[in-house]
Amino acid sequence: MSTNGLVVAIVGATGAVGEEMRAVLAERRFPVSRLVPLASERSAGQTVEWRGEDCLVQVLNEDSFHEVDIALFSAGGSISEKFAPIAADCGCYVVDNSSAFRMMPEIPLVVPEVNPGALEQESMIIANPNCSTIQEVVALQPLHAVAGLKRVVASTYQSASGAGRNGMDELRDQTIDLLNFREPKNNTFSRRLAFDTIPQIDVFQDDGFTKEEHKMMFETRKIMELPDLPVCATCVRVPVFLGHAMSINAEFERPISVEDAMSALENAPGVILHRDPADFPVAADAQGADDVHIGRLRVDPSAPNALTFWVVADNLRKGAATNAVQIAELLKAAGHLDG
Amino acid sequence: MSTNGLVVAIVGATGAVGEEMRAVLAERRFPVSRLVPLASERSAGQTVEWRGEDCLVQVLNEDSFHEVDIALFSAGGSISEKFAPIAADCGCYVVDNSSAFRMMPEIPLVVPEVNPGALEQESMIIANPNCSTIQEVVALQPLHAVAGLKRVVASTYQSASGAGRNGMDELRDQTIDLLNFREPKNNTFSRRLAFDTIPQIDVFQDDGFTKEEHKMMFETRKIMELPDLPVCATCVRVPVFLGHAMSINAEFERPISVEDAMSALENAPGVILHRDPADFPVAADAQGADDVHIGRLRVDPSAPNALTFWVVADNLRKGAATNAVQIAELLKAAGHLDG
Repeated sequence: MSTNGLVVAIVGATGAVGEEMRAVLAERRFPVSRLVPLASERSAGQTVEWRGEDCLVQVLNEDSFHEVDIALFSAGGSISEKFAPIAADCGCYVVDNSSAFRMMPEIPLVVPEVNPGALEQESMIIANPNCSTIQEVVALQPLHAVAGLKRVVASTYQSASGAGRNGMDELRDQTIDLLNFREPKNNTFSRRLAFDTIPQIDVFQDDGFTKEEHKMMFETRKIMELPDLPVCATCVRVPVFLGHAMSINAEFERPISVEDAMSALENAPGVILHRDPADFPVAADAQGADDVHIGRLRVDPSAPNALTFWVVADNLRKGAATNAVQIAELLKAAGHLDG
Repeated sequence: MSTNGLVVAIVGATGAVGEEMRAVLAERRFPVSRLVPLASERSAGQTVEWRGEDCLVQVLNEDSFHEVDIALFSAGGSISEKFAPIAADCGCYVVDNSSAFRMMPEIPLVVPEVNPGALEQESMIIANPNCSTIQEVVALQPLHAVAGLKRVVASTYQSASGAGRNGMDELRDQTIDLLNFREPKNNTFSRRLAFDTIPQIDVFQDDGFTKEEHKMMFETRKIMELPDLPVCATCVRVPVFLGHAMSINAEFERPISVEDAMSALENAPGVILHRDPADFPVAADAQGADDVHIGRLRVDPSAPNALTFWVVADNLRKGAATNAVQIAELLKAAGHLDG
């Protein structure tokens, strides 16, 4: 770290999450002395905006990290698998938004509101969890602290932006095609998303779940440090541009009243509770901000000690960029970036 | 009944469900000697198509049912409350698509694939269940027969057409407004539906559930004749024009394998099973037909003897019009309409 701050790289700087990472670093006044936007050959020559100036995107290569203090990766699993260890070997901290390292026991998987202590496990690579998982555990942790979590069933309503810019473009193009009586095309999604829902996110696994559902099920256990927690997820893409929602049914070991649950959530970091049922949050409420919105909290009468509720967050912000920058802030606060 | 067939009235003939009722009566060759399309003053003078000819819509009044053998109602609860008893007093059978009579003990609430025997309870008024409930119980009944249903958790993805033509028009208008940088208006839905999801269908109840969610919870128990069955529903409107989907987690009393569940569903009436996970059904697959599509069936590992799956159907057809006509067919087969 120079006296002026940190050299921060963004790998995947031209992507949807990369763009949010720049915005969040600036908004939260992370002490950046120099931003190093990195991307593939395809983006060579592009510029990205940083503090009001154009900043030339550099092509990612094995020499990219020599002067970098911390790199935020969001360029897909194979890029992370190859370049995160290279960066770490250069003494550069990595906060990785891909799923490549998340489930490795030696890699911390961190949501700062939930398990900041996981960073005590020394590692140059820290994994940023799956977008849906992040907002889920931010909602579950305060309730778990009150009553002990016993089982979670989640069904999601995930936006096109979870598939990046291509996903948002495809939703827009398909919508315009349909409204103009043209046959819509699909490349990013396995079926037409415009005016339909798709119960598939990421690839199918042998047990019939998708990889996205496995992420929610397994990452939840690791982040909450409940290795045996029963979790079942159904992940569904909906024709929304930005913002993920989910319906959660949670069972607890001990009784928990709606009022106790609401109090716990109101006092929880990163949460905005919508007490009035009719004031439920929607994706439009969450877009562009860092909060996890929780509404429609009620007793689930179908099981003992059960609650059901609705959770919404900006998947590119708290579900990705904001959480990554928060991890960087924790590393800095712990003195890891002081060189 | 004349020798040429039955006089059939449709109350709400100009609505979205009324239109499907005409189509389904014709497709299924229900023996109609004369169709009597009834609607409010607002639709006076309109015509609807019946067997290739224009048929003048009549204004609904207390004298509308004197020559009618059976009336299919889909004009909202207050119209049903007022006119269904009047029709019944005239000796006209009523199949009512509103929620007005569904939970009355003396009124049969019927899904022909599930509880045709409920029609043995003599009643001139038969209630047609809630759209989401119908497709849910068609999927659950074959599994219940194998393993004994113990608990159901459902989260729905319901289309704009559940709110009738106004709902579909509002989704279209809002979508066009947004794509043209105009501020969208909302009247039918409580929030903007275009490119967002709304976790509210019908009005809120004291316990924090919506009335739509109560319908799913209470009607499921009545139809399946399981008065104590624990059910929890979260009903969500999604920006889809036609076709409701739902994610169901079901727990059973006894073990049930995926193969046993699939066999039961493949042999069940009204069901199309999608065995391959990647061949999941979407709303586009269900539109315009009468089948309940089930896919993504897999073990729910978060509870003993549990399964989770995805159910899609055309809410205006099997969720409303088709189920009503099927009830009329059962009444006819039982000799009730031979007058």
